Amino acid sequence: MTVAQLLAALASPEPTPGGGTAAAIAGAMGASLLVMVTGLAKSRNNTDDEKAALAGARAALEPLASRLTELADLDSASFNAVMAAYRLPKATDDEKAARTRAIQEALRGATIVPLDTVRAAADAISHGRAVTEHGNRSAASDAGVAIGLLKAAADGAAANVRINLTGLKDEIFRSATEAETARLTEQAAAHAAAALRSTIS
Amino acid sequence: MTVAQLLAALASPEPTPGGGTAAAIAGAMGASLLVMVTGLAKSRNNTDDEKAALAGARAALEPLASRLTELADLDSASFNAVMAAYRLPKATDDEKAARTRAIQEALRGATIVPLDTVRAAADAISHGRAVTEHGNRSAASDAGVAIGLLKAAADGAAANVRINLTGLKDEIFRSATEAETARLTEQAAAHAAAALRSTIS
Repeated sequence: MTVAQLLAALASPEPTPGGGTAAAIAGAMGASLLVMVTGLAKSRNNTDDEKAALAGARAALEPLASRLTELADLDSASFNAVMAAYRLPKATDDEKAARTRAIQEALRGATIVPLDTVRAAADAISHGRAVTEHGNRSAASDAGVAIGLLKAAADGAAANVRINLTGLKDEIFRSATEAETARLTEQAAAHAAAALRSTIS
Repeated sequence: MTVAQLLAALASPEPTPGGGTAAAIAGAMGASLLVMVTGLAKSRNNTDDEKAALAGARAALEPLASRLTELADLDSASFNAVMAAYRLPKATDDEKAARTRAIQEALRGATIVPLDTVRAAADAISHGRAVTEHGNRSAASDAGVAIGLLKAAADGAAANVRINLTGLKDEIFRSATEAETARLTEQAAAHAAAALRSTIS
């Protein structure tokens, strides 16, 4: 899919691709930008430990960028499954019961996918500090943009987790997922703030 | 360009596309998502005034999404011009003077383009409140993601304005551009907060 097609699809009144996909793509752009910064020749002499920290960040960020790209597609698929479940027949009691089960199952999928996006974005941000501390200073604004995009991705995906959780009847799953979402977004906020502080210094 | 190609280009050690382009694309995704929300059938009965506010937001947001897409390309071009100027010959005094002028001219372009991105993102956010107040509630998380992406776009582009300003010798241009950047990012932050408050209610 071209970037122009993605933007047109986001603007169309079709429900997918929607915010969950856009959040994951923003996260993939952020992780990719951090990968770029790890690949630039250094403007100051890093110690071996600092080089190892940057290389470690790169090794972690490359698969996270791929994972976030994949989650962009999975998000649309999981929301399409919810809409398909709502369209199931509901003429008889058996059909109603089957439809309710299908909706619950699909909604569970539509919370697990954006939760994975929150997790991947938070994970990428946790490697951001090594990049902003030891990366090339001339790319400081690239690293700063990357952290901002990953933070927006984590927060946006968390909003999607929460809106889909409201329809779920399984209270244990709901409260566990809500707690995990809160934990990850708080972690992402703390790591983003730490990374941006070292970008400026 | 496909999304996969964009992500690969962001991850490559080539300086462009970089953070300015990623910020503009994130802004274009945000503006496109807001356009989507204005196009959804309403779940509550909007008054004629509310319908007019939504239609007005849509009419403003569609060209802003296109403009942000265009700025994504312009950002890479403006930074390529800076690098080309730095590569000019500097053997003689005349060459040195010409190179300095070319660098200053190119840096000025490389601040004007991300400043336009800040402006377009801030402008899109200013229409976000009509969308979050009168749009379909089932798309509340899409609108929330959109505002977050536009805010990250404005802040990210502002970081690019500032890093390129540091190399400029024209102090009047520098302080005027810095003031305009600060004004626009503060406006964007205030409008984003207002839009997100009405998303939640």
